[in-house]
Amino acid sequence: MPLSNSLQPLPFPSVTIADSFWAPRQQVNRERTLAIEYDQCQVTGRVESFKLEWKPGQTPVPHIFWDSDVAKWIEAASYSLTTQPDPALEGLLDEVIALIASAQQPDGYLNTHFTQVEPENRFTNLRDWHELYCAGHMIEAAVAHFQATGQRSLLNVVCRYADYIGTVFGLGQGQLPGYDGHEEIELSLVKLYHATGEDRYLALSQYFINQRGQQPHFFDQEAVARGDDPAKFWAKNYAYNQSHMPVREQSEVVGHAVRAMYLYTAMADLAAETGDESLLPALERLWDDLTRHKLYLTGGIGPSRHNEGFTSLYDLPNETAYAETCAAVGLVFWAQRMLALNCDRRYADVLERALYNGALSGVSLDGERFFYENPLASAGGHHRQAWFDCACCPPNIARLIASLGQYVYAQSEQDLVVHLYVQGSGKFEFHGQTVRLHQQSEYPWDGRVTLRLELEQPLAFGLKLRIPGWCRTVKAALNGQPLAVNQLERGYLRIGGEDGARTWQNGDQVELDLAMPVERVYAHPNVTQDVGRTALQRGPLVYCLEAIDQDVPVEHIALPRTSALEPCYTPDLLGGVVVLEGEALVIDAGEWNGHLYRVQPPSYRPITLRAIPYYAWDNRASGAMAVWLPEVGTGS
Amino acid sequence: MPLSNSLQPLPFPSVTIADSFWAPRQQVNRERTLAIEYDQCQVTGRVESFKLEWKPGQTPVPHIFWDSDVAKWIEAASYSLTTQPDPALEGLLDEVIALIASAQQPDGYLNTHFTQVEPENRFTNLRDWHELYCAGHMIEAAVAHFQATGQRSLLNVVCRYADYIGTVFGLGQGQLPGYDGHEEIELSLVKLYHATGEDRYLALSQYFINQRGQQPHFFDQEAVARGDDPAKFWAKNYAYNQSHMPVREQSEVVGHAVRAMYLYTAMADLAAETGDESLLPALERLWDDLTRHKLYLTGGIGPSRHNEGFTSLYDLPNETAYAETCAAVGLVFWAQRMLALNCDRRYADVLERALYNGALSGVSLDGERFFYENPLASAGGHHRQAWFDCACCPPNIARLIASLGQYVYAQSEQDLVVHLYVQGSGKFEFHGQTVRLHQQSEYPWDGRVTLRLELEQPLAFGLKLRIPGWCRTVKAALNGQPLAVNQLERGYLRIGGEDGARTWQNGDQVELDLAMPVERVYAHPNVTQDVGRTALQRGPLVYCLEAIDQDVPVEHIALPRTSALEPCYTPDLLGGVVVLEGEALVIDAGEWNGHLYRVQPPSYRPITLRAIPYYAWDNRASGAMAVWLPEVGTGS
Repeated sequence: MPLSNSLQPLPFPSVTIADSFWAPRQQVNRERTLAIEYDQCQVTGRVESFKLEWKPGQTPVPHIFWDSDVAKWIEAASYSLTTQPDPALEGLLDEVIALIASAQQPDGYLNTHFTQVEPENRFTNLRDWHELYCAGHMIEAAVAHFQATGQRSLLNVVCRYADYIGTVFGLGQGQLPGYDGHEEIELSLVKLYHATGEDRYLALSQYFINQRGQQPHFFDQEAVARGDDPAKFWAKNYAYNQSHMPVREQSEVVGHAVRAMYLYTAMADLAAETGDESLLPALERLWDDLTRHKLYLTGGIGPSRHNEGFTSLYDLPNETAYAETCAAVGLVFWAQRMLALNCDRRYADVLERALYNGALSGVSLDGERFFYENPLASAGGHHRQAWFDCACCPPNIARLIASLGQYVYAQSEQDLVVHLYVQGSGKFEFHGQTVRLHQQSEYPWDGRVTLRLELEQPLAFGLKLRIPGWCRTVKAALNGQPLAVNQLERGYLRIGGEDGARTWQNGDQVELDLAMPVERVYAHPNVTQDVGRTALQRGPLVYCLEAIDQDVPVEHIALPRTSALEPCYTPDLLGGVVVLEGEALVIDAGEWNGHLYRVQPPSYRPITLRAIPYYAWDNRASGAMAVWLPEVGTGS
Repeated sequence: MPLSNSLQPLPFPSVTIADSFWAPRQQVNRERTLAIEYDQCQVTGRVESFKLEWKPGQTPVPHIFWDSDVAKWIEAASYSLTTQPDPALEGLLDEVIALIASAQQPDGYLNTHFTQVEPENRFTNLRDWHELYCAGHMIEAAVAHFQATGQRSLLNVVCRYADYIGTVFGLGQGQLPGYDGHEEIELSLVKLYHATGEDRYLALSQYFINQRGQQPHFFDQEAVARGDDPAKFWAKNYAYNQSHMPVREQSEVVGHAVRAMYLYTAMADLAAETGDESLLPALERLWDDLTRHKLYLTGGIGPSRHNEGFTSLYDLPNETAYAETCAAVGLVFWAQRMLALNCDRRYADVLERALYNGALSGVSLDGERFFYENPLASAGGHHRQAWFDCACCPPNIARLIASLGQYVYAQSEQDLVVHLYVQGSGKFEFHGQTVRLHQQSEYPWDGRVTLRLELEQPLAFGLKLRIPGWCRTVKAALNGQPLAVNQLERGYLRIGGEDGARTWQNGDQVELDLAMPVERVYAHPNVTQDVGRTALQRGPLVYCLEAIDQDVPVEHIALPRTSALEPCYTPDLLGGVVVLEGEALVIDAGEWNGHLYRVQPPSYRPITLRAIPYYAWDNRASGAMAVWLPEVGTGS
């Protein structure tokens, strides 16, 4: 029984995106990124691998996570098909899916690495290998393909595989009491349950979540079973994969960041689907821990390269930030699920922050190059690449962009909800009629939004509009009449009176004016790297200085506390962006006269700086970049 | 033929240290550190290993660098014997040396790891293993023991070993055209040459230095010879061990920091000994690169744990600074050799900085615990340890402290030179008489120094006194008459007139007053971690904030540009130190109300801070520490 207060996100096929910010990104994603990613899957042997023609001694050896890259491409391509028919792409998908189907084993098993390279080791090392992770991505791909095309070609394959997995894993006699070292299958099984209506997939997901971290510890048992010493686990501690304790007991965001996000996403899914409120306190504790102690300003997470994940409280180094693209994408997933459980802008604010900054930075403007790591400062050596041996990030950002519409709107029994402001429209099936909500806006460059309702007949409901946490001055009007905005419901302006209902007429129009000044942000002083520094943001966008825009070295620039920075829309720059310009200071490095230290304090001379949105850096000439700038003229 | 302008350091047996700073450290070193280090060498099996009773399968397995730890203990103990007779210690040395002698192989070879564990691999992997490194330390130990006791027991052993090494390595037929991956033997052979007068040891050192980095590359050749692929060298590049090019072509300080220091020390030794001026330009370039781009304020070097060494220009992170104790000790060695080549305070300033800060921090005040890494900031998790598996640092700091006297004075044909100010005296044999130079001072706590000459008869010479680079106001007087101090020779005040000579009388007295105000230091703005920050120093000492002395978290403290900090001698703290006290500010972290970011700038409230000398941190309760503090009230 779903939780009563849960929202249903409006699926992206019902959402039209027609703005100047995201629509071009979706076009590039469709036309360039998807093509490149398929080519890479081909030339690297990932597609070929499903032919099962690999022989010992051949290189490359099909890798344990290859299948997931193809699956994420299928998922992203299917999302794209949903909103943009493309018979050629559909045909290509059919081909690849037929190949995948041909690789399925008679018992339903499907994994090109283990089938070809080490069939004897199937399901013997869930802790380190990625079998269920690959299975999860194949399930997500199949659901996406089915929803895009109505075809069950891949869906049938993954149902057979999921059914086989359901026989292998569980607490019954002869079953492995295990779960995946890299979470992913849990959230995919919820999707499969939705697509098929089969309760057993939901139950299998519940099993995986409930069994995680129980004692005796499965990863100990399976290590012993394969003759390994469990104490010799390279990551030292099961916190690495969030199996250090049962999930309901967890309070601290730990370990590998992507794994953590996929786990928490599934936990929230299950809470919403099954009404299992026992998961909620842990989710709240984890959310608080992440957002109060471990979240980069960009929405990036996981500072350490060592574990691709979390470290200690307030440990947020800038230049060495790992902040994997996949982790920011995963945070968008988790935030969406939290928002569905509880319509609170705390979740939407983080979703928006990760989406517009730490996730979007993962792909170049031309859609052809990718960041795996998203640091907040660079001496000039960090650049997007065409591909990675471990290629999880490119298709992850592709599937996010292709399915972006699902994050914009939601509905509950009583309300239509707008989480994000994106020009376009949403088409709701609501109380027996089709309701269209049209948005007109230049967001994220401008905070003015006009919403127009298209109704078949008058209808009473609440319209909930998110007032973003970054917005400190908001005006609203209904059909030209000012609306009071001093009463928000967890950060949402609900138009519809005390009882939450108002009878809306076709053509009713709401105008929002979200003031979007340039703001300086200050990190908690426990973030030692940012003490004495400030970062710039405007609306949902975090800004940075990039070397190419400055006349002096980025690392020598300081901001006076009192200098004004002005937004300036620059149509011919980086696809059209609002830059921030204003007076800053530069340290006169020449005063050091080549020495490393001196006792005279630095002197500064005025310069003009230009800051660009963080997501858009490294699209021009190589150079240094910084988000957090020293601020001078403070504290005295 | 030695270089004509080279100085001879006054050997430490001729130097008396009788101050309140170093003398107690020498006592603790003698009474506690040496005993602890011997115990550790015993309980860990390092001493036992020379019995050659290890059998395959036994643990612990004698490690490739074990012999060097015992050797460094012998060296440090011998230095201590020199200035403080101790029959028990002398007897223990005899015992250990007899054991070592018994482990020498008939052909002269001496290494407990290779003799016992893998005799078939002797001298097959100079690149990665430490055979010649261990040999070098045993040679240094033997020379120290010989000079302390006049006994040749260990000296004869190492001469046989060095002679054997001389047959193995060289450019003759059947010889290995190789050299050590971890430099050390080169400088030790110069010492052996001095102790024995045998030219062949100097020649062998020259061979090692000249052959290093030549093509075809020896480490390639030996890798192929043992069946390895040279391209698979784990450190990727021979810059790791400074063999990436011939030494005379080198300009950048690279790779493993201790290896680099030992190499450069030997290069400078050879230049001085042989008059080979072709080494000098490289040494100057390397010195400039180190001191202009790669030197921590503490004299620590080598920021990266990854290669235990150098990275890129201006890369000087504070909290993750590796700054190995051994590397700072090695820098003292190199600086001493540079100073002998050229009496320029640039070298003495760095020597003093490393000695009083980044090296001395390597041992606790009680002499019982050691730092391997010497970061410039800590969140509270970095602490001295009783010992290390890789135990190079404890005996390295012990031998430095035990032989400290050698850095204080020097002499040339014309001059007596004072490099460091340490209460006590130096006894020179100079122009046919014994000249004693007595120093009276509370250095490093006070910059006033009185020097008194004790002469058998009047003598004409120059007295050169270093005016430290940190000192900006100096007064000097000779027998109560003010001396002009506006003409310095490369930072040294030479008393003795234009021609450098003055006829000194017994009892002549020079008074120096080196002004020692509290100063703030600013790093070149390319050191991004220190932009907007300042560090405190007074005289030769770098200061830090340690949590135990503050009422608020160290990382929340900022210094107003204009606040005054006063020195205050505190006899009952940390053995008696000058602390710095004054007004500072603390960020009000409560304003963040538990959130990670906010848009209001921080506010500050006044506090009183107390800074202690960096070398003395982590001798009380655990806690955070910082050298570089945010400075506020700047630039506007």
